[in-house]
Order: sequence, then C-alpha cells, then structure tokens
Amino acid sequence: MITKPTLFLDTDKCKQNIAQMYRKAQKHNLIFRPHFKTHQSLKIGQWFKHLGVEKITVSSVSMAKYFTSEWDDITIAFPVNHLEIDVINNLADEITLNLLAESEETIAFLSEHLTNKVNIFLKIDVGYHRTGINQNQTVLIDRILDGIENSSWMSFSGFLGHAGHTYSCRTQNEIKKIHRASMDIMATLKEKFAIRSPDLMVSLGDTPSCSVAKDFSKVDEIRPGNFVFYDLMQHQIGSNNIDQIVVAVACPIVALHKNRSEIVVYGGGVHFSKESLEDDEGTIYGRAVERGANGWGKIKPDTYVTRLSQEHGIISVPEDQFNQYSIGDYMMVLPVHSCMTANLMKYYCTLEGHKIPRM
Amino acid sequence: MITKPTLFLDTDKCKQNIAQMYRKAQKHNLIFRPHFKTHQSLKIGQWFKHLGVEKITVSSVSMAKYFTSEWDDITIAFPVNHLEIDVINNLADEITLNLLAESEETIAFLSEHLTNKVNIFLKIDVGYHRTGINQNQTVLIDRILDGIENSSWMSFSGFLGHAGHTYSCRTQNEIKKIHRASMDIMATLKEKFAIRSPDLMVSLGDTPSCSVAKDFSKVDEIRPGNFVFYDLMQHQIGSNNIDQIVVAVACPIVALHKNRSEIVVYGGGVHFSKESLEDDEGTIYGRAVERGANGWGKIKPDTYVTRLSQEHGIISVPEDQFNQYSIGDYMMVLPVHSCMTANLMKYYCTLEGHKIPRM
Repeated sequence: MITKPTLFLDTDKCKQNIAQMYRKAQKHNLIFRPHFKTHQSLKIGQWFKHLGVEKITVSSVSMAKYFTSEWDDITIAFPVNHLEIDVINNLADEITLNLLAESEETIAFLSEHLTNKVNIFLKIDVGYHRTGINQNQTVLIDRILDGIENSSWMSFSGFLGHAGHTYSCRTQNEIKKIHRASMDIMATLKEKFAIRSPDLMVSLGDTPSCSVAKDFSKVDEIRPGNFVFYDLMQHQIGSNNIDQIVVAVACPIVALHKNRSEIVVYGGGVHFSKESLEDDEGTIYGRAVERGANGWGKIKPDTYVTRLSQEHGIISVPEDQFNQYSIGDYMMVLPVHSCMTANLMKYYCTLEGHKIPRM
Repeated sequence: MITKPTLFLDTDKCKQNIAQMYRKAQKHNLIFRPHFKTHQSLKIGQWFKHLGVEKITVSSVSMAKYFTSEWDDITIAFPVNHLEIDVINNLADEITLNLLAESEETIAFLSEHLTNKVNIFLKIDVGYHRTGINQNQTVLIDRILDGIENSSWMSFSGFLGHAGHTYSCRTQNEIKKIHRASMDIMATLKEKFAIRSPDLMVSLGDTPSCSVAKDFSKVDEIRPGNFVFYDLMQHQIGSNNIDQIVVAVACPIVALHKNRSEIVVYGGGVHFSKESLEDDEGTIYGRAVERGANGWGKIKPDTYVTRLSQEHGIISVPEDQFNQYSIGDYMMVLPVHSCMTANLMKYYCTLEGHKIPRM
C-alpha cells in the first residue's frame, strides 16, 4: 500500500528495455558493457546476467565495490581518483578491473602505487568537453602508452568516449550526426595507434546514440546506462517512446488549489531531484500518467510538475479535470531524469509490491 | 583522510549560527521551533537542546518518527498526508504532535481516523502560492475551525505560514518587505479569529526573514531551518555572510584541462544536487573556498562549479591560478543549497574527522 513517495518499477517493461539493447549489441557484434549507475541494483543486474551479459560499467569505486559480489569484469568510467588507490588495489585483486586514465600524472601514480593488474582505457573527449584527451593530442597519448607499457601492472585496452553532448539533441538525426562524429574521432585514433596496439578497442556509449544509431561499424563496445529505465529527458532528446519509461513515482495528494488548478503532492526535490527540462509548458519537473491496474498508462495531457521544493511537488492540471483528484489519493509521475531519481530513493517497488533494494 | 566527496561541517561555526538565531528568538520573545529538515541529525539537534530549545519542526512523518527518540514536541510542517494516518496516530500517542491542515477534507478525515490528540495549525498562504489557505477565505477557516472544535482529538493552535517567496529576493529590504506583508496577513487573521480562539498563535519562519528582519511584533513562533548551515543561495538572497556557511564538500581532483582552465573533480549531482543559482558568471553549482588548517577560509575569486553530471563536477578556475591545482589533491566547495546537499550525503565529517550521522 502506498503511504509516501514510492518509486515504482515495471519489471516486465524494464526487462524488455534490457533485452532490446542486448539484441542490438549482438546484432552489431558489440561487447555490451551496460552502465549500472542508473539502477545501482544487484537484483536488476541479474536480469542482464540472465541474458548473458558478463561485463559492466560503473561510475565510482564505491559502486564497483558493491557490484563485485556478482560481477568480475568492471569498468570504472570515471578518471582514476588517486585518493582511492587502496580500494582500487583491493578490487584489482578480486576482479578484472578496467580504469580510465587521461593524464601522464595518473599513469605515473598508478605505476608507483598499483599492486595488482588493471586494464587502462584512455578517455577521449569526443566533443562533450567534460573531460578526456583531445583527439589531436597524439604526442600525449604516445607518452601515456609509454608509461603503461613500462609498468607491469597496466595493460592498454583502448579508447573510451562518452558523447554526452547528445543530451542537447532534439531529433534522432542530430543524435546520429554526433554519433558518426564520435565514431570518426575514435576510428582515426584507432588507425593511428593500431601499429603500436593492434588489439585496442573503441568503447562508446551514451544512451541516445545507443538507442537511435544504426551504424556501429567503428565501435567495439557500448556502455549505455539510462536506457534501462529511460525518462522524460531521454524522450525529449528522442531516445525512447513514453511507454518505454519504466519508473514512476507514486505521490500522495495532500492539497488542492482549484483557483489556480494546481495540486500539491508529497513528492519533492528529495525524491525527484531538481532536474528539469524545458518544454512547451515552460520548465517542468515531471509528468503525470494515467493510473492502471497494471502499473501506469499514457501521459495525462497538460498535467505536469511545475515546481518542486524539498518535499512538496506542485502539479498543474487542466481545469476541466481538476475534480477527478482528491486529497488522500495519489498520482503517478514520470521523472525527468531517472538516474537522479533512482539515486535518491532507497529501493524500487515492483507493480506486484515487492521491494528491490539498491546500493 | 579524504578519499571521496565528503561533506565537512564546521561544528563551532554551526553552533554560532544556532546560538545567534536562538538569541534573536529570545530577544523578540518568540517561541523558537527550528526546522530540522536541513540537518536531519539527532546529534546536531542536541546542540539546540543544550541551549534550551524544546520544540522542533520537521517536513515529513518519517522525519518526525526519527526525532521522537529525543524530542517530544514536533510540528510536521507539511499538509497532512492521509495515507500516513497510522504512523501519525502512533506519533500522537508518544509526543505532542502538531499537524498542518488547510482543507475541510483533511479535518473530516482526521476527525474520523485520529485515535490520539493532536494540535492543528492552519496553513496560510502568505504570498508564496505553494500551498495554504488564502487570507480572504475566512468562511473556509470558520468551517475548518468548526470541524476542529467538533472533534475531541483536535485542538486549534493557530496560523502557520512560510514566506518562501523571500527566496527570490536579492536585498535585505526586499526580504523585510515580504516579512512585513506576511506579518500583516497573519495579524489580520489573528484579530479576526481572536474572539473565537483567544490563544491562537502565529508561526512564521523562512530563513531569509528570520535572519534579516528586526520586527517580529506580530509573530509568536519562528521556524527557520537553513540558517543552521546557510549556503550560497541564502547568501545571494542576503541572509548570511559567506563565513556563516558551515558546510563544504571536499572534492578530489581527477583531471585538469589547462586549455579551458577547468578542473574535473569527483563531486557531482549525486553529492551537491543539481540546484544552481544565476550569478555574474552565469549558472553556477558551487564555489571553491581557500583550504586552511582549521577548515576553510575565503571564497576563491572566479573559481566555481560550472557544470555537474552524476559524479563529475567541472570547476572553472582563473588561468593564472591553474598551476596550483594537481590531480590527487582536493578542493573545498560551498554548496548552492545546503539542505539538498546534506540530504544526499550520508553523514557529516567534522573538521576533527569525526562522523556525525543523519537520518
């Protein structure tokens, strides 16, 4: 029974999202190394494992540690944090650990402090400009590869990129264009360093590109994460249909304001996060969906979260539908950014009422 | 030793913030009922208790439950969530529980389902337009008071407001103007209902007003929360000086980008929240401060968090200071919104290295 904001997960549809991306990776002969930062759950991880997935991506050393109980090949897709070297060494002792480096400093540090073998991906900036080595810094790449080769603890795996700038796309063609550009950058580098490292891999993997692109000819591995749940932001980008969004927050209705056709729900920034998107209605923080016996259905037109404070959510509803809502009932709301919402909630609730814990 | 993003708390300065607000409440003969949603910590609550504070405010039933182990007079400053009536009844059995109502539906529901005595505050909309009864709805207020009087489980305590619209202020005069308007609304209501309820109280309490205003003549109780830590947002509003901000996140440096004078730190949306503010530099998500032997010092000019993703923070730094930073070191960053940051972190770390747990 719902008593407070509860993150529901439609497990059947979630497994469909997983299977669809798995089949796509298979079709294109790609290593499928899904990013688990979105769900952060051993249980949901098992649904990947049942399909045959054996390698995963995480975004922190802590998350790697959490998943080692069931996974033995993990990429930490975040620049090596020198301050966590002790845990990194412990992890490398237990599992196949793949790290991200992008500087000589980090390679020198690892040379000196590693006590177990790790694989190194070089993080390449494919245009997002968050972090990574620029494609033109080939002298730097050579020096880094020298450092890796001079250490008995490191093996070079290849180049890894994240085209996070697809998040500003609004059409599938825009996404495809960025994806092609990322592949071209990686292909050029691969060609340039093929003599030195004939087995080097190219790893890409934002959810928009992995969802939409049809050409993965220059890619060896994909690492999408958000697709497991999808959300309104991904829908706006063009990654998914609304009915592929498999998480929704049940929010108790606590006050009604007919004069401004707004409903106050228990469900705020500590449940959804303050992530927003700009849409026809202005800035929105979530959209209400129809409730159904089996989870939820379609988007309710013009029914969206217009403001959020710590615990309050304000939902704007059409005037002619206002009377269907009552205090003591609840609304189902799709989040703008499922990764951030899942990170705030302690567990998932299945449509059957079972709790799925997360990290 | 810092290994990953860590929320530091300067306990001495925090106690000063608490003492200052306590003295202000005493000076104005106000009941001081601090909001504990910001720190959510029994330990920090004890610092209030040591001064003589006996009543507190929380924002959820869950939070009330957490604090009942040490507090026996709690206001849940959120419209009654009917779906949590069982826990509400349990709480009301244990402590003096003060609830917020703003509708006849809620009063009718409580009449029917309460099994223990509670006090009721009517939530008044003093201009923020998040929720609450409009000051002109005196007929509704009378009907609600009828409902309260007809129940043996409810006592009417008074009118409660939250002038959250002070958050859009940028000067102390703007804050004071809103505070005066809120007091006037409450005073008018108090006068109107004094015959019916001679002992009714007026409770107000946003941090900007409580920090800045000097006239509390029409107020009986204040409920500020954020002042315990303050933050960059409150500083922008005009509530506090930078040196009154008593929380900062230590963020390991993981990558350097000299070409764009940006530093990548481990410290993202899952640590700071995505709360931002608009300042001279554009949208910012935090500001770096000088590190010192005893915590942290002044703001580092032009050194601010310009972007955040799940785990990454991108800090823009002045070009001529770029070389002072190195991978493996860490930066101290003041959060935009301390309530949201504290809610994301599992504990506080004192400057002496002790952990203070939270709910």
